[in-house]
Amino acid sequence: MLRLDTRFLPGFPETLKAHAEALKAAQEALLAKRRDPQNMLGWIDLPEDTETLREIRRFREANPWVEDFVHIGIGGSSLGAMALEAAFRQSGVRFHYVDHVEPEPILALLRTLDPRKTLVHAASKSGSTAETLAGLLVFLDWLKAHLGEGWRRHLVLTTDPKKGPLRAFAEREGIRAFAIPENVGGRFSVLSPVGLLPLAFADADLEALLMGARKANEQALSPLEANLPLKTAFLHHLHRHLPVHVFMVYSERLKHLPAWFVQLHDESLGKVDREGRRVGTTALPALGPKDQHAQVQLFREGPLDKLLTLVVPEAPTEDLLLPEVEGLEEAEYLFGKGMFQLLKAEAEATYRALAEAGQKVYALYLSEVSPYAVGWLLQHLMWQTAFLGELWGVNAFDQPGVELGKRLTFALLGRPGYEGLADGSMEKQM
Amino acid sequence: MLRLDTRFLPGFPETLKAHAEALKAAQEALLAKRRDPQNMLGWIDLPEDTETLREIRRFREANPWVEDFVHIGIGGSSLGAMALEAAFRQSGVRFHYVDHVEPEPILALLRTLDPRKTLVHAASKSGSTAETLAGLLVFLDWLKAHLGEGWRRHLVLTTDPKKGPLRAFAEREGIRAFAIPENVGGRFSVLSPVGLLPLAFADADLEALLMGARKANEQALSPLEANLPLKTAFLHHLHRHLPVHVFMVYSERLKHLPAWFVQLHDESLGKVDREGRRVGTTALPALGPKDQHAQVQLFREGPLDKLLTLVVPEAPTEDLLLPEVEGLEEAEYLFGKGMFQLLKAEAEATYRALAEAGQKVYALYLSEVSPYAVGWLLQHLMWQTAFLGELWGVNAFDQPGVELGKRLTFALLGRPGYEGLADGSMEKQM
Repeated sequence: MLRLDTRFLPGFPETLKAHAEALKAAQEALLAKRRDPQNMLGWIDLPEDTETLREIRRFREANPWVEDFVHIGIGGSSLGAMALEAAFRQSGVRFHYVDHVEPEPILALLRTLDPRKTLVHAASKSGSTAETLAGLLVFLDWLKAHLGEGWRRHLVLTTDPKKGPLRAFAEREGIRAFAIPENVGGRFSVLSPVGLLPLAFADADLEALLMGARKANEQALSPLEANLPLKTAFLHHLHRHLPVHVFMVYSERLKHLPAWFVQLHDESLGKVDREGRRVGTTALPALGPKDQHAQVQLFREGPLDKLLTLVVPEAPTEDLLLPEVEGLEEAEYLFGKGMFQLLKAEAEATYRALAEAGQKVYALYLSEVSPYAVGWLLQHLMWQTAFLGELWGVNAFDQPGVELGKRLTFALLGRPGYEGLADGSMEKQM
Repeated sequence: MLRLDTRFLPGFPETLKAHAEALKAAQEALLAKRRDPQNMLGWIDLPEDTETLREIRRFREANPWVEDFVHIGIGGSSLGAMALEAAFRQSGVRFHYVDHVEPEPILALLRTLDPRKTLVHAASKSGSTAETLAGLLVFLDWLKAHLGEGWRRHLVLTTDPKKGPLRAFAEREGIRAFAIPENVGGRFSVLSPVGLLPLAFADADLEALLMGARKANEQALSPLEANLPLKTAFLHHLHRHLPVHVFMVYSERLKHLPAWFVQLHDESLGKVDREGRRVGTTALPALGPKDQHAQVQLFREGPLDKLLTLVVPEAPTEDLLLPEVEGLEEAEYLFGKGMFQLLKAEAEATYRALAEAGQKVYALYLSEVSPYAVGWLLQHLMWQTAFLGELWGVNAFDQPGVELGKRLTFALLGRPGYEGLADGSMEKQM
């Protein structure tokens, strides 16, 4: 479960109460949009989709031979899977993420893989993501070269239910292809097959994950008093003048979670609003305690321009006793303590030290690093982002700002239809 | 080699010229400090230290049995090693980083390791870093339990040449211990044994790495026209009103480099200056092209509050031809192209799109992702940081802001001498 601690933001409960009406209106405005699939609120329903979960489970059971799982996808099609697989993998399957287009690591990977034991999963909502298509071309060619007609069993796709080149390719070739519902966008798709399929091969506890996410849904549909994501959204709204939002997680297993959150927050909320203003805060990923030795100096003595969220587990799932070692008496204060006690003390000390420095900081306590609690956290953060979109007057579910870069890339690669864009005229405009 | 591109910052060459005197003064002020070891400028000399390199090479050759290398260290004692090992590992040795204190992943690691094939390297300049001591206690206990008196061959330390509990422990037990020179701080120590020892077990090309670093030294000691780090430092000085500095690297092999840079920049420059002002900009790690799908929406449409550095390789060390695949004609524009061409086009397109949006952005081109070029880049960035310290009037080599957190941690753990700090009085002050 999740627990909010705002002990260093003293006026918060009263301020929250004072804004209850506006927050209720934001909640209602968001929920009213659920009726139209165009509004891309399908992520709310993913935790209830037990039918897809069953299909995915059957697919995993039908393929016990998999030893290496190559996940081709980028952005929303990889960050969530990577974060959860790193935290909750139980199986011996090795995961490889082709979420880039650098040739050397892909060549190195191909040299170590046995194609007969490898399953390739390519995920792209649109089916036309350049990086994903590039990776797919390489791995398809490799599978065909090594396995002949047998390649089809080694490829699985996740894409739009009807549209796009990956769907067309799957139908033409008879390849298994899971669906990202039409009304679910990439960065909100972690609980669709984009994330669930790799997690099934990790033997992660998917039921618990979805059960946790349903708890966040319950809260988000509740009145303000019980609505945790509406409260944390309001915390961000109150501090929107601070340019940097630090998302600092005290768990090594969740080391890839900040990157997932950065996309969710930045790509949803970094927008031009209805009045033409540039809005959004910049999410900064951080991990405790290691960033105490990297970023905390700046947080303590640098500019007071940050809102910090500390995500802190309250209990370990398994602890490790720190033994006594002769000759290392400097470490005597650690002898006999659980290692988790050190982790917890560091989180608490950092929390206090940041508040003492005058930074705005709150904590989100996670009962433990379990699929249930983390499923709850992920869905909580998606709700927080959606509520913030309402409060900031932006559409949290599009990404118009990435178009120019895509078109320029096509132009530079000489793709027909994009001529003229890459002729250097932009430099002249500068 | 490194090449600076400021094509979207049109007035820059003239502005640079106008500030030549002040920059020369900053350079001279920094170099004058080299005479006093207290000023911690020993990192300048590390690339010339061939004697230490020879010792490390001999140690590596004397231990060909190592299959798993456990690196215990945090912050400056792990980030550089991790970044370079990920980029340049040639050996089959598996690397494991204990740069945290979460019990579960450590327990999981211990269950997979064979102590007879494992070398444990604990690195801490002071020798008293809590996280490093905690990890060391656990691994020492484990080695002793499995190997009896043989444990000594499986542990190696890197610490202060004379002081601190790790040095004392090494002398008492007869353990091999490499030295971080007294005048080298953690975040500037990557080219000391902290980084070189693990890299020797990775069979990375250490000569080339140091040779590249010497090129950065040459430039940094040159007059302004040939002094690349002084120029990039000035770029940051010019844009110091922008709160966020994005460090975006277009290389998957260099995926851990931004985290190393974040510590270098934030912990060196996030300080209270001589006039009592809080200075520093917040470094934001980013990787291309994946962050085009995560952060670029914000960079394009969100607030114009960023200075961005794009680090872009100019050539691959090995390329991969994108094959033609029937049925995937959507990807026709990629057929027959080198994968690196896509990577390069994406970097160039993003560069133009960010400038078009009105963000301040410049590029640093890296001839290729090689130890020589990356050694040059690392040392360049250390010089840039040191010059910026002069320009901003802060000591780039201390970290006073992390003290309170450490003391509060000790208090919460009941370490003698820290009583009273953790009694909750801080909360009352808020």
